[in-house]
Amino acid sequence: MTIGIVGVGLIGGSMAITLREKGFAQKILGSGRSEKSVDKAMELGLIDEKKKLKDLITESDLIILSVPVDALKEMLPQVLDAINDKQVVIDVGSTKEGFLKVIKGHPKRNRFVATHPMAGTEYSGPEAAVRDLFKGKCTVFCDVEESDKDAVALVEKMYDDLGMKIVYMDAVSHDLHTAYVSHISHITSFALALTVLEKEKEEKAIFELASGGFESTVRLAKSSPDMWIPVFKQNRHNVLDVLYELIYQLKHMKQLLVDEEYEEFYKLIEKANEIKKIIK
Amino acid sequence: MTIGIVGVGLIGGSMAITLREKGFAQKILGSGRSEKSVDKAMELGLIDEKKKLKDLITESDLIILSVPVDALKEMLPQVLDAINDKQVVIDVGSTKEGFLKVIKGHPKRNRFVATHPMAGTEYSGPEAAVRDLFKGKCTVFCDVEESDKDAVALVEKMYDDLGMKIVYMDAVSHDLHTAYVSHISHITSFALALTVLEKEKEEKAIFELASGGFESTVRLAKSSPDMWIPVFKQNRHNVLDVLYELIYQLKHMKQLLVDEEYEEFYKLIEKANEIKKIIK
Repeated sequence: MTIGIVGVGLIGGSMAITLREKGFAQKILGSGRSEKSVDKAMELGLIDEKKKLKDLITESDLIILSVPVDALKEMLPQVLDAINDKQVVIDVGSTKEGFLKVIKGHPKRNRFVATHPMAGTEYSGPEAAVRDLFKGKCTVFCDVEESDKDAVALVEKMYDDLGMKIVYMDAVSHDLHTAYVSHISHITSFALALTVLEKEKEEKAIFELASGGFESTVRLAKSSPDMWIPVFKQNRHNVLDVLYELIYQLKHMKQLLVDEEYEEFYKLIEKANEIKKIIK
Repeated sequence: MTIGIVGVGLIGGSMAITLREKGFAQKILGSGRSEKSVDKAMELGLIDEKKKLKDLITESDLIILSVPVDALKEMLPQVLDAINDKQVVIDVGSTKEGFLKVIKGHPKRNRFVATHPMAGTEYSGPEAAVRDLFKGKCTVFCDVEESDKDAVALVEKMYDDLGMKIVYMDAVSHDLHTAYVSHISHITSFALALTVLEKEKEEKAIFELASGGFESTVRLAKSSPDMWIPVFKQNRHNVLDVLYELIYQLKHMKQLLVDEEYEEFYKLIEKANEIKKIIK
């Protein structure tokens, strides 16, 4: 099978590595808004051929749209306009509700499968692509009842080859849950980085003292705004809901510290510790 | 040499493993407020003998106080009262200014070396002790000019055997910098855990969808209140300063999202990305 990847970066590139190795893809075509990025993907051997989007669509059995969610919203209707009844199109975006509304009722909606592999690193671009990025992780399929059974089956096979566990969910629930388990983590990490950069003027001290705890909390702050601004924009409502709650929790802790209410603060941490039950 | 560890948990226990292996310690004595914990440390082979605090002090060449910083503040003057002019005492606490004031002018102040190994995990107790916890990490020595040269040299040798890089700093700077690179990361992690536990009622969704990003941001929320409340208490002033800034940053992001000022938000993330220069 020939697969066409639009946006051969961290996600698209990592998929290419494993899908070729597993024999799922015999040929991999690449396209993208950045010429430089696609050239780099060629150079790294992630793709076999560089194509114009139009040609990639014509020549691919499976088209993977791995672009920021705002670009996806614009691009997807045009891609669906151009495919035939056998081809399959998927996205790998972090939000779903917005762009699924745009293609609702499209005559080729049934050839599209909405997926979100919950894997990544704080790096981006084709150089960030790594083997086994997806292995053992979870991928979400949204609103599968809108897609043809053969299309869903093909994409299930693909994620199976990537070593992922599939969870099925409606788009509205997906966007709500990802606000909690992914989007807000990035917000806190960006805010923490800004706090430290703003107030801690001795960079050398940060550099020398930063221990594992700081690094793991702040590492997401290296993530690209090109990916995340569109996510926050598309999932604005849910992200704001969670953000209000987070600010409330921090203000509560601040007040307990101001008032030196350490017993109450102790209880709050014990409650936070309950996350152990959920995240091992 | 015989070393005595008061509080054989994550830090004390991990030290014991390596200091025995490296031959730095020929005999390791253990003591602690929790009988159960010391018994566990015996069972795990972390210590050779369980001792009452009084006997541990008498029989040890080097005494490592690995207890929460509030307990340290109470215990340290008594320990110094009981030692002779050859023995050396160290702490491994996350704050320094408060308890160093308490022992200022103590006739045995010169036999004490204030240290803070910047290493740890979100787990606690003797079962959490691991080999190589400290390797390649940084340890801070505070106000070394107050300690005898031979005492400092012995403790330098110990941290060298643990594989740590030593940084020298005054206690006031230490407490300020750790507020940024350690204490605030724990606050954000606790707040994030509480936010998710409060609002996301579908635990199954968190469990299935939680990806690497969420796990790394929230893992510190498993940390023990027994350790962290005393830290926040002792470093209240610095932690509050940083917390005000963090809340300000989050409120700013929230406002940009409310106003749909995505260009401004984009710039903010680009600024946060500068953390790359400091944390590789």
